[in-house]
Amino acid sequence: MPNDVINFNEKFSQFSKHWSPKVIAEMNNYQLKLAKVEGEFVWHTHEDTDEVFIVMNGSLAIHLRDRVIQLNTGEMFVVPKGVEHKPVAQSECQILLIEPRGVVNTGQAGGKLTADNDCWI
Amino acid sequence: MPNDVINFNEKFSQFSKHWSPKVIAEMNNYQLKLAKVEGEFVWHTHEDTDEVFIVMNGSLAIHLRDRVIQLNTGEMFVVPKGVEHKPVAQSECQILLIEPRGVVNTGQAGGKLTADNDCWI
Repeated sequence: MPNDVINFNEKFSQFSKHWSPKVIAEMNNYQLKLAKVEGEFVWHTHEDTDEVFIVMNGSLAIHLRDRVIQLNTGEMFVVPKGVEHKPVAQSECQILLIEPRGVVNTGQAGGKLTADNDCWI
Repeated sequence: MPNDVINFNEKFSQFSKHWSPKVIAEMNNYQLKLAKVEGEFVWHTHEDTDEVFIVMNGSLAIHLRDRVIQLNTGEMFVVPKGVEHKPVAQSECQILLIEPRGVVNTGQAGGKLTADNDCWI
């Protein structure tokens, strides 16, 4: 519900599926999404937008073609528009994503890990 | 610096002034800002944008004209565009703000608590 207090831990308790972002809030035409991730995602690109990754609990490696961004709890990174990336988590990691409404998790890559991009909890 | 890992605690350690948001990252034309707040802010409105408040450490009351939104660590609230609000923190509270580049902290109200709206750390 808009206009309510959003508690991250309470929201994380509502789902368990990996690589399946859940929308928890909107700000203008942007969405804040929670995700639980584990294992290796697909290489993909968002051609039209930057993408914010905030690690709420755990560790996440964001592989870029020229380096690896290692994030731990309380750290964030902005993947620039058009930059190919592949998130990898050795064990379950809880993240907050911020991006415009309508962004698909697998970007241009598609494939079986493509999730509903407007699933609210 | 864009393209670097951003650690919230390290960023919070870099400033102490209250009610003076510091930009830590940009995503498209949006900014993520950290602020330390304590005491009572001014009633104000952002006529053109929603505003995200995330409490990173502490407690924050966001007074609206018809109710008070009480936020603790790990909770967030989106103040809708055009809704008058007044943040109040009984003791120091660390927050993350997300809003378009160029938003002034005191909105239409102005006054002595108006901070530089593009101060990076």
